[in-house]
Amino acid sequence: MKAVLIILDGVGDRPIKALGGLTPLQAAKAEILDLIAERGECGIMDPIAPGQPPGSDTAHLAIFGYDPEKCYPGRGAFEALGVGVDLKPGDVAFRCNLATISDDGVIIDRRAGRISNVDAEKLSESLKEIRIEGVDGVEAEFIHSSEHRGVLVLRGEKLSRMVSDVDPHLTGVKVPKPHPLDDSIEAKRTAKALEEFLEKAGKILRNHPLNKERVKRGLKPANAVLPRGAGVLPRIKSINELWGIKAAAIAGGALYKGVAKAVGFELIKVEGADGTVNTNLKGKVEAVISALKEYDLVFLHIKATDNVSHDKKPEKKVEVIEWISRELKPLVDTVLSENYYLALTGDHTTPCEVGSHTGDPVPLAIIGPGVRRDNVKRFDEISCALGGLNRIRGIDLMRILMNYLGRVPLFGE
Amino acid sequence: MKAVLIILDGVGDRPIKALGGLTPLQAAKAEILDLIAERGECGIMDPIAPGQPPGSDTAHLAIFGYDPEKCYPGRGAFEALGVGVDLKPGDVAFRCNLATISDDGVIIDRRAGRISNVDAEKLSESLKEIRIEGVDGVEAEFIHSSEHRGVLVLRGEKLSRMVSDVDPHLTGVKVPKPHPLDDSIEAKRTAKALEEFLEKAGKILRNHPLNKERVKRGLKPANAVLPRGAGVLPRIKSINELWGIKAAAIAGGALYKGVAKAVGFELIKVEGADGTVNTNLKGKVEAVISALKEYDLVFLHIKATDNVSHDKKPEKKVEVIEWISRELKPLVDTVLSENYYLALTGDHTTPCEVGSHTGDPVPLAIIGPGVRRDNVKRFDEISCALGGLNRIRGIDLMRILMNYLGRVPLFGE
Repeated sequence: MKAVLIILDGVGDRPIKALGGLTPLQAAKAEILDLIAERGECGIMDPIAPGQPPGSDTAHLAIFGYDPEKCYPGRGAFEALGVGVDLKPGDVAFRCNLATISDDGVIIDRRAGRISNVDAEKLSESLKEIRIEGVDGVEAEFIHSSEHRGVLVLRGEKLSRMVSDVDPHLTGVKVPKPHPLDDSIEAKRTAKALEEFLEKAGKILRNHPLNKERVKRGLKPANAVLPRGAGVLPRIKSINELWGIKAAAIAGGALYKGVAKAVGFELIKVEGADGTVNTNLKGKVEAVISALKEYDLVFLHIKATDNVSHDKKPEKKVEVIEWISRELKPLVDTVLSENYYLALTGDHTTPCEVGSHTGDPVPLAIIGPGVRRDNVKRFDEISCALGGLNRIRGIDLMRILMNYLGRVPLFGE
Repeated sequence: MKAVLIILDGVGDRPIKALGGLTPLQAAKAEILDLIAERGECGIMDPIAPGQPPGSDTAHLAIFGYDPEKCYPGRGAFEALGVGVDLKPGDVAFRCNLATISDDGVIIDRRAGRISNVDAEKLSESLKEIRIEGVDGVEAEFIHSSEHRGVLVLRGEKLSRMVSDVDPHLTGVKVPKPHPLDDSIEAKRTAKALEEFLEKAGKILRNHPLNKERVKRGLKPANAVLPRGAGVLPRIKSINELWGIKAAAIAGGALYKGVAKAVGFELIKVEGADGTVNTNLKGKVEAVISALKEYDLVFLHIKATDNVSHDKKPEKKVEVIEWISRELKPLVDTVLSENYYLALTGDHTTPCEVGSHTGDPVPLAIIGPGVRRDNVKRFDEISCALGGLNRIRGIDLMRILMNYLGRVPLFGE
């Protein structure tokens, strides 16, 4: 018994005027998605709780079966794992932006003019020489991931994730200094080490020849590092320990890879899977089909639906949904012919008219041997609400899937 | 973005023989209520939990977004706030009845023959002279509210709400003495102070000329005070602190005003809003429309549906529902034209054939920009159960509304 879990990031939406009062899922001609709904049992799902807008990390934690209220360890560790850092218990990791700030420390561009991979890689290389001297026994490592994105890891004893974000998510304001968020020695040490790293990084970046060259070329210099989302490894049992399964994840974005890895999925790399609308979806789908030979559960994450939602492009979202539906055909054919299970859902709603995550539920459909097929014919927010699964929470989905796989131990006798 | 929350008290019901097997909501021609269902997303809601009969206070707490399991502080404080008492942390308040008891202390009438406001006011005035002498540093204040109803507040240090009800909700039995419900000094002090107040109140009332005159007139004397529902201010964050909104409440009954005030709603007074079937509903509706100019959330409580349910009058309940539906038209017109949100629901089911609160779910409908309109056309218990909201709990409703208002912070990143 094997299962596939497909998450279309931010696929949930609201009725949109530009689409004649339909949601993008309703407006799309998505035969394969609708086939899953028609052959399966459907419902709606609150990733965290009714009305609660989920972050991408908390939503995935919940859908993987981990209560984020109890075990959310901050975003940074997921980012670090996602870019391949070998994170150890005790390490504190931060998601970072390479940014452009003015001489007096005001943020001009949080993405340094969407700096190229090549330039960002070179600048990040120069940060490797930084040594933390003001806090005993702490080392810093900066790892570039893509474009303006990077990860900072502080390693050593007595560190804490209770330090404030440096990235204010705003431009036109001064870069704030990091400060401890509680009274612990650990938080103070971490904030102090972070401050030292940022000062040294700023000095190196401001004087870097590449930045001077960028200014000459009319490009924005990447002269500051803006960390946020301090995080540590979550203290949890792995998905293998919990259910006795081998699980693999196929995703483009670092965060999704990181959450999956943190809970015990093995990451399968697919060339050209980059978490954008230009991702190599064909390659990802082939990789899922192939992985099903070896793994009990394969997680496929598709980010494109969320990207176009944040960009507030409903027509584009319809196109992306139709494209995904077509590309999923070989996988759904395999699932049906091999009698595998498949759960199709989203991690949250990102309404195109809002442009950010909201707390509305997402549609859900599950196919596989013995599921209680209902009358729902279409995979969309409103049709699925009338399905046999009714309304569940994200935290319940993994147990439902593991139940079909016969992996949930009896409670009682 | 603004929202209206309308609670029709006790509106939920069960199929009734006298109505041809329909519920009062099904039997009523309630065009405006049905319009809300038809334009909106519908569902059913368990105010507390499936099968759990809610009190009016716990149901409202939950619907306002506060878990009564965690923060229910007893009824008395809500009553006190509702009649305008400036309750302080540490005060213990009791809902009280002016009652008629026999010479040997047996309860004859828990409402003293439904004593008039004028008589009750005069008798209550005489209780103001009572001083607590047997317990250090405790003061008592008795406030008449309406007819036989009043509130007693004990103020001072070291008081507790862990004291037993004196009102047994029965006639023909002796008035019990208050006793502490735990071993704390606070509970013992409170029970002792309460006992002293009741003895002194009994003595004053028995000798009051007005009571002697009432007996001559063939009326029952109000010769005892029966306290119940010891309560303190809840320790909670206000609705403004939680969501950053300005909220106003329009209600007749003291309890509803009290719960609303306790969680941070500002009370808007409407002449003739008295929590009965003769309430000034037109005035309340106008007040809601007007309040929407200033407040983000306006709560409208309508008690009449519950009154007729407790009186076991299904035909009257149908009439009341139809009247409410007509009176709500200007408000619903405003909500639709201004693109506000509106949630319509009940606080509990009061089946006319039972005559008291039961644990059945209540219907719920929400209109507003972007709600996922479903196929439900009528606002009743059975139609709404097939709606897109499915089945939620009372505690989830406020977060769902605040999500539409963009007021719920992201959890995670």
